[in-house]
Parts: sequence; structure tokens; C-alpha cells
Amino acid sequence: MNAIQRLIQPRSVAIIGASADPSKTSGRPASFLLKHGFVGEIYPVNPKVDKIGDLTCYPDIASLPAVPDVAIVLLGAERAHGAVRELSKRGTAAAIVLASGFTETGADGAERQQQLLEAAGSMRILGPNTIGLVNLTDNIVLSASGALAMDHFTAGSIGLVSQSGGILGSLLSRAAARGIGLSKLVSTSNEADLELADFIDYLADDDATKVIALYIEAIRNPARFREAALKARRAGKPVVVFKIGRSEAGAKAAISHTGALAGSDRMYDAFFRQLGIVRAKTFEDLLDIPAALSAGRSLRGKRVAILTSTGGAGTIVSDCLGMAGFETPVPDEKTAEQLRALQSGSHAVLDRNPIDVTLAGLQPDLLRGAIRILLASTTYDALVIIAGSSAVGTPALMADAIRDCLPMSDKPVIAYVSPYAPNVVSVLTQRGVPAYTSAESCAGALDGLLQAAHAVQLQPSGSIGRTIDISDFPAGALDEAQAKTLFARFGVPTAAEKIVTTPSEAEAAARELGSRVVLKILSSTITHKSDVGGVAVNLTFETIGARLLAMADEVERNTSERPRRFLVQEMVTGGVEFILGMHRDSLGAAVLLGMGGVTAELFKDTSMRLLPPEGGLTRSEALAMARDLVTWPLLDGFRGRPKCDVDALASAIVAFSEMVAQLGERLIEAEINPVFVLPAGQGVRAADGVIVLGPADT
Amino acid sequence: MNAIQRLIQPRSVAIIGASADPSKTSGRPASFLLKHGFVGEIYPVNPKVDKIGDLTCYPDIASLPAVPDVAIVLLGAERAHGAVRELSKRGTAAAIVLASGFTETGADGAERQQQLLEAAGSMRILGPNTIGLVNLTDNIVLSASGALAMDHFTAGSIGLVSQSGGILGSLLSRAAARGIGLSKLVSTSNEADLELADFIDYLADDDATKVIALYIEAIRNPARFREAALKARRAGKPVVVFKIGRSEAGAKAAISHTGALAGSDRMYDAFFRQLGIVRAKTFEDLLDIPAALSAGRSLRGKRVAILTSTGGAGTIVSDCLGMAGFETPVPDEKTAEQLRALQSGSHAVLDRNPIDVTLAGLQPDLLRGAIRILLASTTYDALVIIAGSSAVGTPALMADAIRDCLPMSDKPVIAYVSPYAPNVVSVLTQRGVPAYTSAESCAGALDGLLQAAHAVQLQPSGSIGRTIDISDFPAGALDEAQAKTLFARFGVPTAAEKIVTTPSEAEAAARELGSRVVLKILSSTITHKSDVGGVAVNLTFETIGARLLAMADEVERNTSERPRRFLVQEMVTGGVEFILGMHRDSLGAAVLLGMGGVTAELFKDTSMRLLPPEGGLTRSEALAMARDLVTWPLLDGFRGRPKCDVDALASAIVAFSEMVAQLGERLIEAEINPVFVLPAGQGVRAADGVIVLGPADT
Repeated sequence: MNAIQRLIQPRSVAIIGASADPSKTSGRPASFLLKHGFVGEIYPVNPKVDKIGDLTCYPDIASLPAVPDVAIVLLGAERAHGAVRELSKRGTAAAIVLASGFTETGADGAERQQQLLEAAGSMRILGPNTIGLVNLTDNIVLSASGALAMDHFTAGSIGLVSQSGGILGSLLSRAAARGIGLSKLVSTSNEADLELADFIDYLADDDATKVIALYIEAIRNPARFREAALKARRAGKPVVVFKIGRSEAGAKAAISHTGALAGSDRMYDAFFRQLGIVRAKTFEDLLDIPAALSAGRSLRGKRVAILTSTGGAGTIVSDCLGMAGFETPVPDEKTAEQLRALQSGSHAVLDRNPIDVTLAGLQPDLLRGAIRILLASTTYDALVIIAGSSAVGTPALMADAIRDCLPMSDKPVIAYVSPYAPNVVSVLTQRGVPAYTSAESCAGALDGLLQAAHAVQLQPSGSIGRTIDISDFPAGALDEAQAKTLFARFGVPTAAEKIVTTPSEAEAAARELGSRVVLKILSSTITHKSDVGGVAVNLTFETIGARLLAMADEVERNTSERPRRFLVQEMVTGGVEFILGMHRDSLGAAVLLGMGGVTAELFKDTSMRLLPPEGGLTRSEALAMARDLVTWPLLDGFRGRPKCDVDALASAIVAFSEMVAQLGERLIEAEINPVFVLPAGQGVRAADGVIVLGPADT
Repeated sequence: MNAIQRLIQPRSVAIIGASADPSKTSGRPASFLLKHGFVGEIYPVNPKVDKIGDLTCYPDIASLPAVPDVAIVLLGAERAHGAVRELSKRGTAAAIVLASGFTETGADGAERQQQLLEAAGSMRILGPNTIGLVNLTDNIVLSASGALAMDHFTAGSIGLVSQSGGILGSLLSRAAARGIGLSKLVSTSNEADLELADFIDYLADDDATKVIALYIEAIRNPARFREAALKARRAGKPVVVFKIGRSEAGAKAAISHTGALAGSDRMYDAFFRQLGIVRAKTFEDLLDIPAALSAGRSLRGKRVAILTSTGGAGTIVSDCLGMAGFETPVPDEKTAEQLRALQSGSHAVLDRNPIDVTLAGLQPDLLRGAIRILLASTTYDALVIIAGSSAVGTPALMADAIRDCLPMSDKPVIAYVSPYAPNVVSVLTQRGVPAYTSAESCAGALDGLLQAAHAVQLQPSGSIGRTIDISDFPAGALDEAQAKTLFARFGVPTAAEKIVTTPSEAEAAARELGSRVVLKILSSTITHKSDVGGVAVNLTFETIGARLLAMADEVERNTSERPRRFLVQEMVTGGVEFILGMHRDSLGAAVLLGMGGVTAELFKDTSMRLLPPEGGLTRSEALAMARDLVTWPLLDGFRGRPKCDVDALASAIVAFSEMVAQLGERLIEAEINPVFVLPAGQGVRAADGVIVLGPADT
């Protein structure tokens, strides 16, 4: 057994600072272990006591009769590291440090946490500031928290890891009340040592665990998290995450727009999605979705049958599923006929969904028949059964009837319980029919099943395949011409252009570049050229010379500096404008695609992908980014418009992503804005852009 | 007492078809009345029995010793109308008809329902197909449904009316479990006679009711509903509605786009909002929001303090409130200082919100102190208190501490209960602190309070003040020139234009209308002119003649008919494009404003107002419509664009709305698309439009 296995399934537990009084916090760990029938050794350590109940109490760690697998350290922040050092010396696998007063309190605490970690040496630390863990599979509580006090545990197949200790009790009690079984429940809290990734890794191997649920505040080590999540995925165990911080204000302002558009929470969103992780939208969903997944049934489409024996509730569920993008088609003729045969003589109207079999709530055979018909029907991918007040008295009657039908199909079957009836919820869930008390939870659970089923297939990354030399570019903000040259070097097509300094050079350039051209000042310091009068469009070789002089005057008036260099650029028309940018934070580097133009900007219509560690984006991911946009139809022939060159856009996104991948940390900012996507066959043109490079040696 | 008062607060109840067996459905009404201590007379009617328990049973209605206030009719659909006729003859105020088999089953049932109504004469009918009502104020159940079986009721100030009987039991049991007190609970179901409006009207007068909650499937009589809702509002009683049908597919296709953009549910949304009704987004909110409103405290802003003694849960609430548009500012310096003084010696970090007073859960005095400080702080408009596991053992300790502080301020105080602890929820709610178990419910409740506080002030309607003569317009679809003439007659400025038939007339018109003009075919049958080649822009008097001939050829090729008439129109440039349309359904007529252009169309950026019964929209409502658009900044100087002539847009909306109001049912369709809003001072121009008129005599 490795250290984490010994931590979670210990054969012996030392309790450092144990009290003989079970009503005290420090008396709880021994009391919890005994109450739930821990079969290993318990070693309380306390110099002032000889016995704790029937347990021998030891004066210090050195006196322990054997090396404990795990130790619960109940000492305060000031004294914990001494005990930790002793435990490590003895060869203890892991210590659970409950004390607070570490990084969560500021600089002093952070130093204390560092000392703790040093004292631990090769021994693993859970915490500090943790409330510990519960191994429900084996009935082992390693905690001193009253919030985890339970008479008995509802063991099951959901492994739950939380960065907050405070919500562990909430999850444990809520799951128990609903009949949702957990396998392991761990609070990592300060994560001085053991972190989310360690427990995901453990749970991926744990036979008792089929689904992994995570409560996340921040991922401290994205690379390790990624590895562990991929391991869970290979093990066929879906991972569900509830991540707080969704309402966080956007990233700090930067030269480019991409930072504000990307935002920290959207980075997490992309990170999770690209790992095939299901993201729970609400805290309730962190139990709702795993409960549905742990039933082990597969959702293959969006067509849901709602079987009800009570009016109103079925409609509420149907309405909510519709809002969430599910379909509730009426029974096909064959299905309706079968249902009619089942209810011969009744007035049931069967051309509707919710399918109302008024008597089924009281007649298990009728319920069984209806469920079998709906599970066999090719019209439906899933079944929601409404439990009304008739189920309250005898919940097992309904639950057993449903359970009898489950083996005939692996379509998901969930229940909505309409009255207040915790017993119905619990009995149904325990019998393999995850039950919910809100329509939103039903929709959330089905959506989670769908996300898990359609989790993005990981794609081999596009690899650069060649190294582009950029040693000729300076550090700092590039001017527009340099930026576009760099984009072009990585394969992004740019608008044709010439740098000029005089009216006659401009005229010559205009003759060469086409009938209509754009004139812009060229500067690496002025980023908003049009604000200072530094952009003119729709010029010809006849008008450009005079316009250049007028522009120089106007910019000089506005900036007190006369521009010396100008760019004459082919005028790109007839395309759709995009913004293509990059954003980097602790999770990695991402490419962002957004529709350009002032209206789209108001709607913030963007899509984003994190780059894989190995390189750029694949072509299919680049295409998927474009298809994710609400404004995608503008590229796709909407309302008789010409189809745009989506292939060229995908190539440009891939090229841009390879640039981001190769330049790594050296690329501080990069944004093309706008890039025009022209009609099919005519390609794309980067018309303006920003690049900020770090020094070459970083 | 009027008939509805006698129905809800009866002094005597006849039970037609009563059974002596209380386990049978028909035995329940007497059993329910007796169980809850009904003090009036109970008259069971059943020819086969002499006694039901201690009650004398009567062979028929004619034998009843007195006229009952209300009768519960337990007979089947076929026999109910006979009993109803007898009851009406005796002078019974109202009959509750439980039988199903009426309109809900189709044409035969609808006929049966009509017979029932005729049999009732002047007696009022609740139902049929209803499960009845519960008067919790007076402990009276008038029902035969097991779903309403309760040992005792939690009386309170929320009056609940539902069009679905099925969910009545759900609402009753859920409210009871949460300690939410109801006053009256009524199922109107088929609404053969008594409908939502009757009970809203009743509850507006009912002293026990402070908040009215409605479960609505469809409003059958919008005018009566409106009157009743306004009466409730005058009585200071907020109305909360949960309306199903949100996911309904859009309205049927029509010539104009407005129908699809308006949609039935958006009409309801506008209807409710304009009556100051709070719309619940979820079924849970139908209890969550009234629970908050019934505490009678006022939310004046969006700044919320979160007071917690447990980590995690406060963050979940804070995050969710942020997503819902609330702010959770950190304590101001004075508030932080007061909190520090309260916790002298602790390490509490008080520059954060959630405000974490770790020990407060166990120390009521500390909790009281912190609540007083936060209620007094000018930084906060409301307070959310997190109840952790420490509250589970002694919920009254926390509840009483909070309740002691409530009188010092009327800011809302609600609670989030983190562990599964129904006793905590119930005790807090009963003590005046509405308690919730999900962060979304907290956000929903606060949002409901805000909606109630900011309910749109009803404005006197804009009145036409003059009648516009349109007798010179034909019935049917008008051509573009006619439509714009009609718009102009009501005061909507239109683009200058001339009807021409020949190249030379077109040339003359172009000379008159400006340097650049638009040429369009003029037809009342071809609605998508550009699809058939019937639109050309950017023409001059030099080019228009040839273009007219070419256009005639092209349209002829596409439609097999050679256009005879054309419109030459000034070319409007430099404005922002809008669509202005009308939609009418059973709720009334609405004006819809939408941003034009292909991108905005993809985002469906529109706002809508129903017209008041008396006339058109006011100017301020018209302005509010424009401000509701996501793309409003485009009118308001976004990114250095010129400010647009919003005043002229408002005038055009008012003029359009007055046209809709005056023409009434005669106006079958009307849409201006596009109307250009020019820079400030330059007005608006309707550039194209559709009108379909009904015959003048309708």
C-alpha cells in the first residue's frame, strides 16, 4: 500500500493530543473510530492520561508500540510541527493536521505551513486546516468535526474531494438524507502537500468508486490535476466538478481585448471541458449529477419520456427540460397503442408527453407495464418518473416496480418527487432510481449524463513540426507591421501592405496594392490609431498623398508628435470580421476566437480553447471553436449570404495556436483584430494586430 | 358575505355523495372537516346511509335542514349536474365539483361542462376537476384528496391559487416542511366559473393574506386578471406568479418577423411585469419568494452582507449572488472596526465578505452583536446568515438570536442552511427569518424582493387624443408605399420617396430626392423584394433609368410577372437599424422593438411592451424599451460613435403604439423594418414596412 492508501484505509491510527472526554473536540476522533467499528489499532497520545476508555494512551509518539499508518494531529498550529517531525521519524505514512492558523491567515501562517512541510519530510500531510476524511466504504472517520458525526453511513460509489472543509458536513448529510451513497469523502483544504490530484489519482484506482466529485476553489497544480483527471477517464470514471469563483470580475485590463474576454472562470471552463470533466452549474448539481452517473446508465440523446400519475408536476418537469434543451416528444403510434392496451377501458389521453397514467401510482403492475413500454420505445432516450402523493405511504411499492424494469435497458431512469417526501427520495435513490425534488435538478442531472456521454474526445495535439526563427524581432511591443510579419511567419495570411514615409511613396504603394487602399500611421506606442486620427480608408493613389499630409498634421495635433512612418494596406472588403487572441494564466495558454464588429462585441460572442501541453490546436478543434459562436451562421450562408472560407479560418487559428505554443512564456500578448474571413476560396486576411514579446532569454 | 367568502369561510358544508368509510375518497371530506375541528354544520348527503359517525346523513339535497354555504359534490361527471341544479335551487353559495371528465377530455367533456354551468345558475362553481381548497387561517379543508391530508396546518400570510390541482398537495407539504405559513390554498382547475381573478380579488381583501402566489397554466380572462392584480397591488399585497409554458415553441410564422420574436411566453412576461407582478423563474421560487415577501421587510438595493461561521457555504452563496447581479462588498472601515471590537482577541479576518465570525454559531451574543452591526451598516441592504452544522442541535438558539435583532431595521434577513437540517429551516422561517437550502433559492428570494420593490410604476397611458382617418386604405396587405403613408399619418417619419413607372420618371425622382437613391419594386404581394432582385441601392439619376429596366427583367425572370410600379427612395445612411412591430394574442396587443441587422437578429435582441387597455405607450415606456436592449449602447455613443436621436425613436415608438391602439383588431400585422435612427437631431426614417388590414367593419 502506498502512503495515500494507508491514509485512507489505515490499519492503525495514532491520535496526537487525544482527550478522554468524548464531548470535547479532541475526544471525538477516538469516539468516531470506535462508534463505526474500526478494526485496526488506535493509539491515543496524551502525556496526562493513561487510558481513554479501553484504549491504552501513550505519553508521546516515541512510545507508540508500532508505527501507525496515519496520525490525526489535534495540536494547535504552534505545536503541530513538533509532532509531525516525530511521526515522520517513526515512519508514519501520513498525518492529518487539523489546526488552522497557516496560509489562510497571511504571511506568518504561510511561514508556519512551510515549517510544517519541512518537518514532515517524506511523510505525507493532509491539511493543515482540514477537517479530515471519511472512508465510507470501510466505515472509517478520521476527523474531529461534529459536522461529520453520523449514526451510520450510506456507502456507495461516489468519491468526493473538497478544497473546503466547511462544506464536507453539508455534502455528507445531504447525501445521506437523499440515499446517495458515497465511497470516500476528503477535505484537502490548505493543500500544503496532498492535493486534489493525489485523491483523484487514488479514486481512479479505488474499486469502490465509480464517480468522482470535486469541490474546487482553485487548482494549484494544473499539470498534475490534468494527469490525474486523464487517469480517471481512462479508468472509465466520470469526474464532476463544482468550481466557485464564477462571478469573479474579469482579468486585468491589457492592451488587447482578449484578457477581459477570456476571464479566469472561462479558462477553468475550457480546462474542464477539454479534460472531459462535467461541470456542475450549482452546488446541488455536485450531488445531483454524480447520483445520476453512479446508476451507471447511458444517455444517448435528448428525447425524454415523462411518466406521471399526477397533473402539474409532469408539466413542470417537461417545461424545465424544454428550457434546458431536451425534447419531450409525444409517444409514437406503436408506443401509444401499447400504452392504450395496458389501460384498456380508461379514458387516458396518450398522445401527450407527460404520459399520464392516472392510476399507475397505486397499481405497481400498471406502472411496470408503462415503464417497460417506454424503455423499449425507440422514441425515448431516458425516462423521468413523477412520484406523487400516492407514493408517500408506500415508497417501496413504486421503487420496487421501477427497479424490476431497470435490467431490460440501460437508458437512464430518474424520478421527480412532487410532494415533500424525503422517504420517497431516499428509497428510490437507494433502489437505483436517482430521485430529485426540483425540475432544475432533473434537468441538471440529465445534462450531466449527456455531458459525460459526449465528453470531448481528446485529440492528439497539432504539433508545430518546425521551429520558426524569430530572433530578428525585438522585445517589447511590436509595431503593426512587425506584428503582422510575425503572424505571417507562422502561417497566418495578412493583408498586403507597404511601409512608406512620404506622399510619393504612398502613391506608389497605392498603385501597386489595388484600386482602394487604407492608410495608417505606424507606431509601436500608439495602440488606438483611429482615436488620434491615424486611420483613413477607401483611398486611391490619387488621394493618398494629400491624405497622408493631413493625417500627419492631425496626429501631431492630437499626440504632440508627428508620425514619420505610415502603412499603406490593401483594403479588404466583403468578409466577416473576427478577433483572434491568446490568454495565459496559471492553467495554461488559451486561444480565443470572437466575432468582430461593434454589435458582436456587446454580446461578447467568443469561444476559447486551452492549448494542450504538447503544442497547438488541431484543425477540428479550430473548426469547433468557430461553430461554437452564436454568430457562426454568418460564416455559413445565413439568409442568403455567401459561405465564408471556414477552411482558411481554421488554418489561421491552428497557425496562431502553434505560434502561441512555440513562443510560450515569451509571448506576453498577441491579438489579431480584425482578421477578415472572405467568401469561400478567397482565404482570410489579418488586417491589424498586437504583439508584445518578452526578452529572448526568458 | 358574498359567495366566494361563503365558499372559503363556510358556516355549513354539504357533502354530496358522502361515504361512511373514511378510507374511501368519498369518506374523506367529512373526516378532514372533523379532524381539523370545523365548527360549522356538516351535512352529508347519501340515500343509502343514515349516519356518518355522529353526523346525520340526508337522503337528498331537498331534505337538508338548512341552506349550506358550500357543497362538495363527489358524484361522477355524469351525475354532478343534477346535484348542482338542486343545490342552486336551495340557494347554496358555491359548489365544489371534484369530478373529472369535462373540458380536459375533449369535445364531449366540454359540452358536459357547459351543462354543468347552466345547471348552476347563479350558484358559483369551483372546478370541475378541482381538488378543492384549504382555508388554513380557519382550519377548513374542502377536499377529498389524500394529497391534502395533514395532521395540522402551518397557518400564515401567503394565499396560494393554482390552476393545477395536482401540485396543490406538493405546495402544501413543501411549505409545511419548511415552516412557511399559508392562509388559503385553492385549486381552480377547469375554471368553468370561478377563476384565478376571483380568488386574487378575494385575497386582496382577506386580512390573513399579505402575499398572493399563483401557479398559472394560462390566463383565460386577461382583463379580469388585470383588474384583480391591480386591486391586490392597491392593497399593498405583492403577487408572485409561476407560469408554465416557458419552453413553448414560438408563434406561427407570419409575414412579419415580430410574431416569432414576440412568442407567447414573452407576452406573459410583459403582461406580468407591467402589472408589477413578480415572476418566479422556478417552481421552488413560488414558495421561496413569497416566504421572503411575507416577512414584510424591504430590499432597497443590491448590496448583501453574508454572515457565516462556516467556510465554503458563505462562498457558495456569495458566488451565486454575484452571478445573479448582487454585490457583496467588504465591510466599510467603521463596520469592520465594530466587528473587530466584538471579537477582540480572535484572528478573524474582517476585510472580507462573507464575514466569517467563526465562533458565532455557538455564541448567540456574538451572533446578535454581529447582526446588529451589519443591519446598522450603511454598506448593506440585506443580510444572509449561514447556518452551519452547529445550528442543527439547537436551532432555536440561533433563530432567537436573529429574531431579537429584526426590529432594529427593516432590511431583509434570510438564512442559508448548509447541512441537511429541516428542523433548522423550519424554526428559522417560523421565527421570521426565511431559510433556504440552496444558494439559487437565496438569490431567487432576494431577486423577488427587488422585483417587488422596483415593480414598474403604472403610468397613465399615452392617449391618442385624435382619431386618424384611414378610410382611404383598402383591406388586405398594403403595398410598401401605402404602408409607409399609413405609418406617417400616425406620426412615424418615413423616408422620402416617389412612385414611378418609367425610367424617365425614375430619373426625375432621383434628381429630386438627393445624390444617392434606392430603387425598389412596388408590390403588395411580393414581400421579400430583394430575394427576387427587386432592390437596388446607391443609385444616381444617371444610373437609375437603366437599372429600372434591368430590375424589371430580373424580377420578371424570377416571378414570371413583370413589375409595373417602382419606388424611388432617398437613401438613408449613417443610422442604426431597428425593427418596430406589433404582436397580438389573447393577452392584448404588444409593441416590439428590436435591433436590426443580421448580427442582432442572431442574438434576438428585442424588448416588448403590452399596450394598456386605454391607449398607446407613454414616452418614458418607449425610452425604457430602447434602454432594455443589449445593443442600447449603439444608440448612446458606444466607443466614440455619435449619439443617436433617441428622442425621435421614442416619438416613433409612441406614434406606432397609438396606431396599434386606435386600429385595434383591424390591424392584423404591422411592422417597420428597418427604421433608421439617425444621429441626434436628425430624427428617424421608416425605410420599409408591412401592414395587413382587416375589413373596415370588424
